[in-house]
Amino acid sequence: VAPRQTSKATGAASTRATLAQIARAAGVSIPTVSKVLNGRDDVGETTRERVEAVLRDHQYIRRNRPRIVKPPRFVDLVMDGLDGSWPASVTSGVESAAYEADLHVAVSVARAAGSNRLHLDQDWLERTLDRGSAGVVLGLVELTEQQRIRLERARLPCVMIHPLSNPPPGVASVGANTWAGAYDATEHLITLGHRRIALVTGPRGQLSEQARIAGYRSAMAAAGLDVAPELVRHGSYDRSSGKQQVEHLLGLSPQPTAIFICSDHMAIGGYEALADARLKVPRDMSVVGFDDLPEARWVYPALTTVRQPLKEMAKAALQLLVRLINQDEVDSTRLEFATSLIVRHSTRAV
Amino acid sequence: VAPRQTSKATGAASTRATLAQIARAAGVSIPTVSKVLNGRDDVGETTRERVEAVLRDHQYIRRNRPRIVKPPRFVDLVMDGLDGSWPASVTSGVESAAYEADLHVAVSVARAAGSNRLHLDQDWLERTLDRGSAGVVLGLVELTEQQRIRLERARLPCVMIHPLSNPPPGVASVGANTWAGAYDATEHLITLGHRRIALVTGPRGQLSEQARIAGYRSAMAAAGLDVAPELVRHGSYDRSSGKQQVEHLLGLSPQPTAIFICSDHMAIGGYEALADARLKVPRDMSVVGFDDLPEARWVYPALTTVRQPLKEMAKAALQLLVRLINQDEVDSTRLEFATSLIVRHSTRAV
Repeated sequence: VAPRQTSKATGAASTRATLAQIARAAGVSIPTVSKVLNGRDDVGETTRERVEAVLRDHQYIRRNRPRIVKPPRFVDLVMDGLDGSWPASVTSGVESAAYEADLHVAVSVARAAGSNRLHLDQDWLERTLDRGSAGVVLGLVELTEQQRIRLERARLPCVMIHPLSNPPPGVASVGANTWAGAYDATEHLITLGHRRIALVTGPRGQLSEQARIAGYRSAMAAAGLDVAPELVRHGSYDRSSGKQQVEHLLGLSPQPTAIFICSDHMAIGGYEALADARLKVPRDMSVVGFDDLPEARWVYPALTTVRQPLKEMAKAALQLLVRLINQDEVDSTRLEFATSLIVRHSTRAV
Repeated sequence: VAPRQTSKATGAASTRATLAQIARAAGVSIPTVSKVLNGRDDVGETTRERVEAVLRDHQYIRRNRPRIVKPPRFVDLVMDGLDGSWPASVTSGVESAAYEADLHVAVSVARAAGSNRLHLDQDWLERTLDRGSAGVVLGLVELTEQQRIRLERARLPCVMIHPLSNPPPGVASVGANTWAGAYDATEHLITLGHRRIALVTGPRGQLSEQARIAGYRSAMAAAGLDVAPELVRHGSYDRSSGKQQVEHLLGLSPQPTAIFICSDHMAIGGYEALADARLKVPRDMSVVGFDDLPEARWVYPALTTVRQPLKEMAKAALQLLVRLINQDEVDSTRLEFATSLIVRHSTRAV
């Protein structure tokens, strides 16, 4: 009986036996050896050195890192790109809400299949599933129907920030009331006496583009103003397309006296076109932007713009995701934030 | 013998047995059941529905997500904040290099102990260790000596981007040659005929602040120009401090004719101070910035600035980290990128 017991002790608990040997050789307790192995701070320097020396002498293989008490839970944040202050605000909002929920954030770029930057490729999905995330926040990216089904089958909750088209039933989303934002911006220009008001909006067919055109048209109609078709232009939300569209508008006769440009980056491009044409903002042209990114305050003159609270939207998206992960009751899977008009120095009365 | 074999089969491979039952009941192969369970796309819709129905009938508990073939490896990116285009460039560079190395990126903010935003608190370190990362990239944050030892004991390689002070021996870092950048910027202004050139740099005592002052002084000395002490001011790299320091410089008599402002954000604040004083850039004052963030191109007039290739630096930091993780040979654990002067429209000859 005795030999079998010995064999059992060294077999089942060989690590503990070795720790005990180390402790004995160093003249310390087993917990002290454990602390040294786990890199804890509450061990005296002399004791630590003695234990380290004994560990070396015994060629003890230490674990690579301290044991994980509770496995960390990750959520995925996937965006169409990470450069610039738009994704920065989203990342910042998601990270801070995740921190409060004790979740870790894995951030990645949705690398597109072919030329369509807004649709996720299959590789992205496999990587996300591999990561073992508890859920996904998507910023400005679209799921194909196949991918949505795949996420659902993998039981991975998903929240979209600013869906580009109406999300399919069952997919949660957080957006801003862009219709109301566009209405307010247009009404502001009308109140200042502008009548010939141009619009530079996003790519045709996107949800936000439709909402912005509708808001602009509604405000014009409410004031009894007609919209000349040549005054509505489509950009792609970036600076260079804004510059290009404003250059086009400046070629019209008569020129508009005000332009509502539906992203701050496009408005900054518009400033360039106006400067090139030696026109002063707001003296020669009133400009209203959309987003209220930090750069809207930095350009000169500071840009009047429609604020959408991106960081708060990102926080809310993460909080909604947490409720979906925990299978808590959710009042609504489609949250919409109010926009607000921030009047700075790029607009004035005709 | 026969009963023991049966018992072994149902004991050791109960899942497989159940899969076989499902397959038999649905009239499909076991791999097909497997595909349905793992949410794969290559199963016909009718077959899938039949298998799903049998799974429901048998109350088969499916795994929450497909089995992980290879456990994902994470690296940590920790910064002092995530808002704005500086952290965005770093995140973008780290993510793209990590993608190429098949690593996932966990991003987090170093929440500071007390009021010192630049030192990491203990909680950060515990969360990072919990995450089980393979390594850490730190952006604009400092480690205490205790934290550095803790990381080393946990065998967690670490690379600092833009260390604020000289990193301790053994800690890898990626920086830019800020001395040369400051020299080039100052020399550019001297070449344009400026003599009374002011400097707005960072907080006293930081490594980059020292390098910038030294570069400025060297260029001034090489041209035989004295530096009046009142022309050197310290900001905190943000917009409002830039505005404040330029306002101070405008109170001097005689005023400087050019200001080298050591961050684009401070330079944007400087533009505001100059506009408030009804001074035109570059007619009344030449301005050079530092960083070359996207906004340097957007301000009007576009800012002449010292470019440090942040995104490339972030990529290099991740690539260096990968070598440290893999215990590959590393030529140098301190990489320094060249800066370059980008001349735009904010400087002109006196």
